[in-house]
Amino acid sequence: MKRYEKLANQLSELIARGDLPAGARIPSVRAACKAWGVSAATVFRAYYLLENRGLIKALPRSGYFVSEAAKEAMRQTAHSSPREAASNSVNISDLVFKVLHTIKQAETIALGSAFVDPALLPTARVGKSCAAVNRSTDLSTMVAGLPPGHDGLRRQISLRYLMAGLAVPIDEIIITSGALEALTLSLQLLTSPGDVIVIEKPTFYAALQAIQRLGLKVVEIPVDPVEGHDLTALALALEQHPVRACWFMTSFHNPTGVTLDDSRKEALVDLLAKHDVPLIEDDVYSELHFGPTPVRPAKFFDRKGLVIHCGSFAKCLAPGYRIGWAAGGRFAGALERAKWMTTLSASVPAQRAIADYLEHGGFDRFLHKLRSQLSLQQSQMLDAISRYFPADTMATRAAGGYFTWVTLPDHIDSIRLFLAALENGISVAPGPVFSADGAFRQRVRLNYGYPWSARLERAVATLGALCADESRCATALAGPVRVR
Amino acid sequence: MKRYEKLANQLSELIARGDLPAGARIPSVRAACKAWGVSAATVFRAYYLLENRGLIKALPRSGYFVSEAAKEAMRQTAHSSPREAASNSVNISDLVFKVLHTIKQAETIALGSAFVDPALLPTARVGKSCAAVNRSTDLSTMVAGLPPGHDGLRRQISLRYLMAGLAVPIDEIIITSGALEALTLSLQLLTSPGDVIVIEKPTFYAALQAIQRLGLKVVEIPVDPVEGHDLTALALALEQHPVRACWFMTSFHNPTGVTLDDSRKEALVDLLAKHDVPLIEDDVYSELHFGPTPVRPAKFFDRKGLVIHCGSFAKCLAPGYRIGWAAGGRFAGALERAKWMTTLSASVPAQRAIADYLEHGGFDRFLHKLRSQLSLQQSQMLDAISRYFPADTMATRAAGGYFTWVTLPDHIDSIRLFLAALENGISVAPGPVFSADGAFRQRVRLNYGYPWSARLERAVATLGALCADESRCATALAGPVRVR
Repeated sequence: MKRYEKLANQLSELIARGDLPAGARIPSVRAACKAWGVSAATVFRAYYLLENRGLIKALPRSGYFVSEAAKEAMRQTAHSSPREAASNSVNISDLVFKVLHTIKQAETIALGSAFVDPALLPTARVGKSCAAVNRSTDLSTMVAGLPPGHDGLRRQISLRYLMAGLAVPIDEIIITSGALEALTLSLQLLTSPGDVIVIEKPTFYAALQAIQRLGLKVVEIPVDPVEGHDLTALALALEQHPVRACWFMTSFHNPTGVTLDDSRKEALVDLLAKHDVPLIEDDVYSELHFGPTPVRPAKFFDRKGLVIHCGSFAKCLAPGYRIGWAAGGRFAGALERAKWMTTLSASVPAQRAIADYLEHGGFDRFLHKLRSQLSLQQSQMLDAISRYFPADTMATRAAGGYFTWVTLPDHIDSIRLFLAALENGISVAPGPVFSADGAFRQRVRLNYGYPWSARLERAVATLGALCADESRCATALAGPVRVR
Repeated sequence: MKRYEKLANQLSELIARGDLPAGARIPSVRAACKAWGVSAATVFRAYYLLENRGLIKALPRSGYFVSEAAKEAMRQTAHSSPREAASNSVNISDLVFKVLHTIKQAETIALGSAFVDPALLPTARVGKSCAAVNRSTDLSTMVAGLPPGHDGLRRQISLRYLMAGLAVPIDEIIITSGALEALTLSLQLLTSPGDVIVIEKPTFYAALQAIQRLGLKVVEIPVDPVEGHDLTALALALEQHPVRACWFMTSFHNPTGVTLDDSRKEALVDLLAKHDVPLIEDDVYSELHFGPTPVRPAKFFDRKGLVIHCGSFAKCLAPGYRIGWAAGGRFAGALERAKWMTTLSASVPAQRAIADYLEHGGFDRFLHKLRSQLSLQQSQMLDAISRYFPADTMATRAAGGYFTWVTLPDHIDSIRLFLAALENGISVAPGPVFSADGAFRQRVRLNYGYPWSARLERAVATLGALCADESRCATALAGPVRVR
């Protein structure tokens, strides 16, 4: 067990025994460092874990306190439909929508975006493929695009798996309208209304939306920004609940950026196999690893066909084309059926274009360049954050992708920061959009998918200044936050 | 009230009073014609209605009998998840899948297909548009495709509404991945698991699948092949159940081909408005009217914004492109959100291609030709059916689209016919795929979307011969039917 886990567990026990009752103040991060002889990072991570578990709460400029609901939170329960469970005065759904809509505002600096700068992508080359292969079209091309999808495209995807060390037969691959469809289709397939599923906390907001639509109950597993998923909590959830599926990002997790290492991925797969619970693995950033070799997905360790691995070309090649896929394991046949019944085929011109590009366009050469560019931009972003943000800000350094998950000082409210930033023409993704209950109000996700520039430098400086301006972003301000 | 409705109601009363107990034989069609001095068509339609209501049943080569469950069926109830409700030995879902899969078999004569012959469509011209507009692509084109969708495409759709006499503002139109996504998204938006919705019987099988996925309860409203939806039954359902939405095809209904006339459409809209119940209107065949002017959708009569009108280019222009839309009425904003959260945007290359074609490709000129071609093919198909099928076969003549709904003689089982036909390289759509409970076993849907040929002529002749061959298709054959 890691130092921060020990520390968190010690505090949990004190809370469980009632030694630390609801409302009791716990040491500030600085005081805790001195008292226990550990680094600030260790205390941060311990508190982070406790906050995720609902045991402690940060109060404005006062520090950390044992939450009123701590006792109840010790007994982990599956709650229904996240939107109903939200006890926060902010409508998270409205907030998500507002963040998404900033993509459409060309003048906004898109630090809240979930996409890489399209100017970094080979859009002209993909357009050339699209034009070349779609000029002629007939019955056979239309039929070839029907589920499970274009054969050439599926063969190319299978080859990419092979390069990452996985042998995934073409038969297992079903082309979808973006990874999002692969994920929600898998969830629909594996569950009925009222079923319990396990998700991450924090998580991708589309997962929360899908769960709400399908009337599912959820158990949330904390994701530590350094270690990843809390497998102890997962084991407990699997013991206590009739879990029908898990939906996890095991590499370059959105929003924290964390990647489970191989041994933890294997442990995760083994744990789920023991309970015969399928894993829906969201791996849309897999091509964007900064290291020299691909990061293995959890599916690599799957021996029972329980992992549905969902990928996409939207994050690393052609955002608007909406081409993703599921490698469905033992569920591939059922997924193919579900695809027939929901949206029939993925758009055929897009399937043909991507297939042609993958075969002839030089994807690997391009990815090689993109990866070092993103890695450079990460350093530039983290450097700017350290220069402009308050001293006790923490930002994660991921091993791939283009997100950093930023923990702001205690007294900052990320929703207020989001609103103040928007007024300054800057979007950020405030922490609460990544949970059902409005948690993570001291956190924001920042995107470094755009090449560094004086404009970006100024934007980060503006965010830092807003954080320092208590009249704009402090948690203590009276009255509810109005998002609409 | 029409003659056949009177006749059906008279028989219903006899059954309700117990004068005709369960198991009692009712007059054969021929006997009834003589006895009551009405045409065979009137008796057929009366019996059709009674069968739809679950009051009578056809038994192999014996005639019609009052069903065992008649008493219960008099009290109309909402049943849950159609798949569970199916008491039939055939797995309807397997059957649907088998029918769908025949599309992929190039050698099969696709009388069971839901598509028009792609050779009749201007695929080369659309491909030219696709190539021309997608050669160059950048951030702005990607962003322009995000919900609610490509502006130029939405403008063209709004213009087409205008030509049909409807003023639908662009703001109301959301582009989707085919009409199927527009329909299921609307259903998701309007309901929660356990809610009651009203559908048609017979209905489009994707509606049944969506209902099952979403855990909804359904009330089925009979659709008469001549008059359309039974509005009396609908009024009763609205009185008795907390109905959250209706999903209807009001023009060129699939599978029957029937179109509600204007006065009945208006009555439908008024009835729903009285109860404040939204209508999801599936109108994917709207462009394929045989008459000189477009047929008005129910949305034309909507004054409260309660109708979500769903259309598509998949049936009349470009099947593989997967471009459809919803004109969302008062739900347009919520639908746009739902689209963001489920599959993000529809494929951008396809949106741009269709928009360009609609503006420059001569869609109206093409449609003019297609409509007369389909009308001709309808006559050829109906003529062939009358020549080759048994004498007491009835086939509907729709005012548009490319389906005829064929009622076979009493002793024919359409699932056996489907299987026997497949062995002969011919697909048909057997009646049971259009209901949750395996009804319509004496009916098949035939497609006349392919230009008439000696090959088609032979196929219809083969079907006719199979119907006459009792060893192949008779209901009386022992043992369950195996579909897989």
